Amino acid sequence: MKLYSYWRSTTSYRVRIALNLKGIDYEIQPVDLLQGEQSSPDYVELNPIRGVPTLITDDGTVLTQSMAILDYLDQIAPDPPLLPQDDPINRARILAAAMVFATDVHPVNNLKVIQKLPGVSTQSQRVEWMLHWMDLGFKAYAELIAPKGIYSFGQTPTLADVCFVAQAYNADRWGLDLAPYPRLVEINENCLATPAFAAAKPDQQRESK
Amino acid sequence: MKLYSYWRSTTSYRVRIALNLKGIDYEIQPVDLLQGEQSSPDYVELNPIRGVPTLITDDGTVLTQSMAILDYLDQIAPDPPLLPQDDPINRARILAAAMVFATDVHPVNNLKVIQKLPGVSTQSQRVEWMLHWMDLGFKAYAELIAPKGIYSFGQTPTLADVCFVAQAYNADRWGLDLAPYPRLVEINENCLATPAFAAAKPDQQRESK
Repeated sequence: MKLYSYWRSTTSYRVRIALNLKGIDYEIQPVDLLQGEQSSPDYVELNPIRGVPTLITDDGTVLTQSMAILDYLDQIAPDPPLLPQDDPINRARILAAAMVFATDVHPVNNLKVIQKLPGVSTQSQRVEWMLHWMDLGFKAYAELIAPKGIYSFGQTPTLADVCFVAQAYNADRWGLDLAPYPRLVEINENCLATPAFAAAKPDQQRESK
Repeated sequence: MKLYSYWRSTTSYRVRIALNLKGIDYEIQPVDLLQGEQSSPDYVELNPIRGVPTLITDDGTVLTQSMAILDYLDQIAPDPPLLPQDDPINRARILAAAMVFATDVHPVNNLKVIQKLPGVSTQSQRVEWMLHWMDLGFKAYAELIAPKGIYSFGQTPTLADVCFVAQAYNADRWGLDLAPYPRLVEINENCLATPAFAAAKPDQQRESK
């Protein structure tokens, strides 16, 4: 498969982790958001919303939206599962925790949104905006996950960890300390010590360019 | 089941439509976002992210995040399906179209985000912000759906229609004309002529209070 991915994009990072967890071979096609490559006519034809990631499957099918791509990967390669297949309640709980990052944090802190904020002209104002939503998200996430376990919902990684670790990278990048949430610090460390997560890290993509 | 719902919330509207499509009985518990009821201590205990909807199942389980609740309903009541169960590619396409509204439009136009926009003091500035993201979303959605059919992806409603119709209500509320997207106008009309959608309309909840 081919993954159009920006190294620092948290949504690209989610899909890199999932592809690694599933053991699916893929090639990275870098898309430089800062250079506006997501708005080139060729790319917009693949991805009308002008975002990353985009996944091209082995038969050439074009898939967009990270959460839809993650669902697809869980359908075609169910082992190990990102979400339980036969436990609707736990499935909904894990998905709800993942959605804190997918709907409540990432979209409002997306580059195109930050760049469009009215009345904001300094980087420190932009960072203040981002940290506000991140902190609310981590606080809610900490209340939604299981109180114990190596990962957010127990002894195996799930979709929630995939979305959390990508956002924890962003927190570190912009200077939000997760120390007030010791359980989150621990889960992040456990995930990053897991090979599928470690191999998906933003620096891994940047350095392989 | 009991659904905590605000009549004008597009995410509450999504779940009302899905419950109707599935033929599941539910009782509405109104949450007035303008009065701040989502931040009352009792409600925050149910829903740490302080949003609507929240679904309480018949055995008392608390579920949050509309997209997770919709997935849950599709698991426990698979007929009619919101997403195909055995067609990963079409499932991913429908989910990606739904996610345009769930991640790219709704979160940035959410009341709590609008109220927090720096340097914005007038209602016309707020409306301008909302219409910008809505228009981008409808444009992308029109390119992601099937070119023909009663609904966005053919002859039966899907998760994409559920999310689209709720956002089309918001477009009408804030004065965005869908006329540049005739296929979307037609789908919206077809959905609203479908009893499960019609019975979920915001005015239906308001009037039943």
